[in-house]
Amino acid sequence: MTTSPPAPRTSAQARGPASPLGLHRVLDPPGVLPQAAWRLDPSPAIAPDEVRVRVDRLNLDAASYRQLRETYAGDPDKIRAAVLQIIATRGKMQNPVTGSGGMLTGTVEEVGPQSPLGLEPGQRIATLVSLTLTPLLITDSLYRWDGQSEQVPCDGHAILFARSIAAVLPDDLPVPLSLAVMDVCGAPALTRRVVTPGVTALIIGAAGKSGSLSAAAARQAGAAKVIGVVPTETEAALLRDNKGLVDEIVIADARDPVGLAARTQTAGGPADVTVVCVDVAGCEGGAILSTAQGGTVIFFSMATSFSAAALGAEGLAADVTMLVGNGYVPGHAEFALDLLRATPPVRSLFEKRVHP
Amino acid sequence: MTTSPPAPRTSAQARGPASPLGLHRVLDPPGVLPQAAWRLDPSPAIAPDEVRVRVDRLNLDAASYRQLRETYAGDPDKIRAAVLQIIATRGKMQNPVTGSGGMLTGTVEEVGPQSPLGLEPGQRIATLVSLTLTPLLITDSLYRWDGQSEQVPCDGHAILFARSIAAVLPDDLPVPLSLAVMDVCGAPALTRRVVTPGVTALIIGAAGKSGSLSAAAARQAGAAKVIGVVPTETEAALLRDNKGLVDEIVIADARDPVGLAARTQTAGGPADVTVVCVDVAGCEGGAILSTAQGGTVIFFSMATSFSAAALGAEGLAADVTMLVGNGYVPGHAEFALDLLRATPPVRSLFEKRVHP
Repeated sequence: MTTSPPAPRTSAQARGPASPLGLHRVLDPPGVLPQAAWRLDPSPAIAPDEVRVRVDRLNLDAASYRQLRETYAGDPDKIRAAVLQIIATRGKMQNPVTGSGGMLTGTVEEVGPQSPLGLEPGQRIATLVSLTLTPLLITDSLYRWDGQSEQVPCDGHAILFARSIAAVLPDDLPVPLSLAVMDVCGAPALTRRVVTPGVTALIIGAAGKSGSLSAAAARQAGAAKVIGVVPTETEAALLRDNKGLVDEIVIADARDPVGLAARTQTAGGPADVTVVCVDVAGCEGGAILSTAQGGTVIFFSMATSFSAAALGAEGLAADVTMLVGNGYVPGHAEFALDLLRATPPVRSLFEKRVHP
Repeated sequence: MTTSPPAPRTSAQARGPASPLGLHRVLDPPGVLPQAAWRLDPSPAIAPDEVRVRVDRLNLDAASYRQLRETYAGDPDKIRAAVLQIIATRGKMQNPVTGSGGMLTGTVEEVGPQSPLGLEPGQRIATLVSLTLTPLLITDSLYRWDGQSEQVPCDGHAILFARSIAAVLPDDLPVPLSLAVMDVCGAPALTRRVVTPGVTALIIGAAGKSGSLSAAAARQAGAAKVIGVVPTETEAALLRDNKGLVDEIVIADARDPVGLAARTQTAGGPADVTVVCVDVAGCEGGAILSTAQGGTVIFFSMATSFSAAALGAEGLAADVTMLVGNGYVPGHAEFALDLLRATPPVRSLFEKRVHP
């Protein structure tokens, strides 16, 4: 790894001052955000607040990879050519059909003097913002990729803006484990913010990745009781085997509001703070009904329906604060990695689910 | 209006103690919430915590009425028969195709001794929970309804549970005006909760019903500056004609994040609290980008996409708290009616939009 010399005046800079959101890298159509753009400028020369990363691996979004594989009937040459074509045309890896991207790992190559990201050349990092808004240029024709999985070994570079998010991959943990933690690190960070000492916390999906981290975060924030909801006896056994993560285990179908609320009540509920960590549709009513009046529900499931949550609370005359689980909280990756290190049951659950 | 004698022991009570959510009124399938039920028991005898209302008008949900009118080609007899059939079969007015209901007005007839709703016999009220979960029995065959609008004059009764929501219709305001205020009263109530003295508030859709009330609520809660966003010069003129509601007017397309954020900045932004009150899809990014780091966005539009909000904030590295606009906050109807009375520009805007 070598540190490049200071960046020369670049075409990007020549177009005007750098935008922390990367607006100066948007070529087409002008004036939209990088994620909404058809084409970005992936020129290697960085603006004073940008960072250039030497990319070693793309991790394509599952939906994107599936679409490519199905379109080209699994033919590795055609899949490879399609991905190369997308990146060359758009200056980013955003599947035009699915609209989705993925993330990348690489090594910091050059850091602009005004970059606020706190990175240093030589650090191995993962990006926590989507590839759909990350300028990217591939230089090795993806010759090392067999096209058989969404893991794409590669050589090339990517650009991070002032408001990009990247996390340093720690030396003490296997990379797949760190990536799995970073993938869900917004949930424990927001849980920590919302939980106050002495409350009862309900974690729906407590044996999963975001759920187990959120349970540990609730505990660390001082929750007096942590109740974990799981759908099956098998998952309950996982929680029992990993003692200390939750105080009470509830086996319930989170889509059944009355059943979930009744079992939560028996386990010491209703909850002051409920965290929904299962990617199953129809959990809004159960979460609301299991939460005390004046309490808070954090929805971390992408299967959450905005209108089901809003109308559900109204229909139940439930005075609950409902939060959209924002995947970004400053320091979220470091906090989640520290939680994993400090909480053996969380690490054990993750290691069961992540295969390096 | 007469007060009925104490309720006799009823079939509902015979099935066990009354549930504040009305579970004891659910006939089919058993164990689900009233809104999810196929059939409710609309027996007139009330449990100790219930209230019976003499109904004088149903206000069908617009989508429900449209579906009925189109299915029966506008034939009044067939539309009337279909609505009667739904209510007789289901014990509630929930259109089986659209799933939606509406609300009702009527007069309180009997109040159980343990009802927490604070109602008294003889009061004229509107229900603020949906007809989809309200036991209802019609006794006049809807003979006064011409089937030509979603306003259904009728005679019959409805049951309110302990956790139902109803508001007394005030004597000093026309009923259509009160109903229009009650329809959006969750927005100003939650805005008041979130706004703290000295903040900058951004109201997207400030010339609309929920928007103008939210602007007034932000002002009352001590906002130092209220910025109103409207889509057109016509709407801007409405705000200018009703002085004092907002401090700054921004004309922008709320679906254009970069444009909205730039204009908000010029008007004194970014905002500490942003309230989204326009029922247009695609406003998530603009709301997030116009809000300061550490600020809060309240989404009151039913067109809000949960995933667009969650992923949008992450993609912008925006550390903003995002709230699902809960339509229920205790005291919300009274607060909104008081705001309308105390804020001439709000009343003027409402009167332009509501035709008694």
